[in-house]
Amino acid sequence: MRKLLVIGIGAGNPDHMTVQAINGLNRADVLFIPDKGATKNDLAELRRQICDRFVTNPKSRRVEFDVPVRAEPTSSYRSTVDDWHEAIAAIYEGLIRDELAQDGCGAFLIWGDPSLYDSALRILERVRLRGNVEFALEVIPGITAVQALAASHKMALNRIGDAILITTGRRLTEEGLPENAGSTVVMLDGKCAFNTLKDKNAVIHWGAYLGTPDEIIISGRLGNVGDEIERVREEARRKKGWIMDTYLLRKPDVGQ
Amino acid sequence: MRKLLVIGIGAGNPDHMTVQAINGLNRADVLFIPDKGATKNDLAELRRQICDRFVTNPKSRRVEFDVPVRAEPTSSYRSTVDDWHEAIAAIYEGLIRDELAQDGCGAFLIWGDPSLYDSALRILERVRLRGNVEFALEVIPGITAVQALAASHKMALNRIGDAILITTGRRLTEEGLPENAGSTVVMLDGKCAFNTLKDKNAVIHWGAYLGTPDEIIISGRLGNVGDEIERVREEARRKKGWIMDTYLLRKPDVGQ
Repeated sequence: MRKLLVIGIGAGNPDHMTVQAINGLNRADVLFIPDKGATKNDLAELRRQICDRFVTNPKSRRVEFDVPVRAEPTSSYRSTVDDWHEAIAAIYEGLIRDELAQDGCGAFLIWGDPSLYDSALRILERVRLRGNVEFALEVIPGITAVQALAASHKMALNRIGDAILITTGRRLTEEGLPENAGSTVVMLDGKCAFNTLKDKNAVIHWGAYLGTPDEIIISGRLGNVGDEIERVREEARRKKGWIMDTYLLRKPDVGQ
Repeated sequence: MRKLLVIGIGAGNPDHMTVQAINGLNRADVLFIPDKGATKNDLAELRRQICDRFVTNPKSRRVEFDVPVRAEPTSSYRSTVDDWHEAIAAIYEGLIRDELAQDGCGAFLIWGDPSLYDSALRILERVRLRGNVEFALEVIPGITAVQALAASHKMALNRIGDAILITTGRRLTEEGLPENAGSTVVMLDGKCAFNTLKDKNAVIHWGAYLGTPDEIIISGRLGNVGDEIERVREEARRKKGWIMDTYLLRKPDVGQ
């Protein structure tokens, strides 16, 4: 049967690669690389560098493919995602069928960890349900931006014995800071949702391009650094053409 | 100035080691190893194996030390932890002062990731506040049991666009499943807190000794597998003398 590896390759620092991930890259006959021809894209370039540095298997072949752009959300966020995932599932199915031998091994390289706000595992489940190709699946975890954020700020994510909520910018705007977690980590936030919070004494630990030479980190009370982060973020995004960032929030005066 | 590295070494599979962690081990003059003389302890043995396999720096020296046992919680969980951390801080201070040259580099090896339910960073902050030794600090993230759990169950931690609560067994028992997160990850649970939940249709994805050859995973509805997990867990704990486990919970019928 065909084998598929879904490999977490870390948050942007090639040294985030684990021994397991390096071995996974080298077990694969085919490495599936999204963003076909995106030579000017930093992340695509960084992924190529990771392959160049760590792949030593001479039989390994790279197959680049296009990923459809997600439609703007209309009536329902989930149904937009649904259509988009189905389109990608059809592409994955074709790649598996056309590029992998019946007993071949293919690898998908995932930024961060396949388990955290990534769609590859869900899309491969769709491919399986479509019933046209069979495969065994193996998942290799990777360092996430959340972990790189905590490492760069030299802090624990949780307070002692307390909970952590990992959520999205959209939800933070709608729901505010939670009552049931002393720490809130926000991902997928393109709109600086932290500045919608009413409590300007809340503390933010923010980071962009974490683990890379371009890393920027800022921390402080929202009232002091909220606008600065928004400005720095916009400036960096304009200069580089893209940004990836994440942050941790705590209510004031709750200690470590 | 002295340099201290706090290095995440993964959840128990030596292949979880990152390139950054391996380099960190080899930058250190001294590796600080807790549980002095604990030869019969699997985890202490596994940590030694990781050092044996990855440390190539001939100048590297290992210093083992005793860690005080935490008192049973009395009036307040946090004040018990407070006393315990202060005792360990005094030990760390002595190690840094006595074992590291003024420009030396020492490393603490942390299971999982130093940012997730680990006390080393907090204890080193105490050492700094005591004011007797100065040091620069660097944190290297590692793969956590939570990530190994998701990888072994081949699943995402989050549902699409939804939040994740990472919490403790104690809090799960007190608070039940949260309203503001579709997925709940539980750590530090020695008492099978999942079996205190009223909703037996909730789905659990459980794992012990994750990433190791002894790994056990079980998933299903609490009503079907809750008792089985408790039995398997107790049997494994008795046989090996220790257990490390974690799990993810979802309310029923909420989809992926």
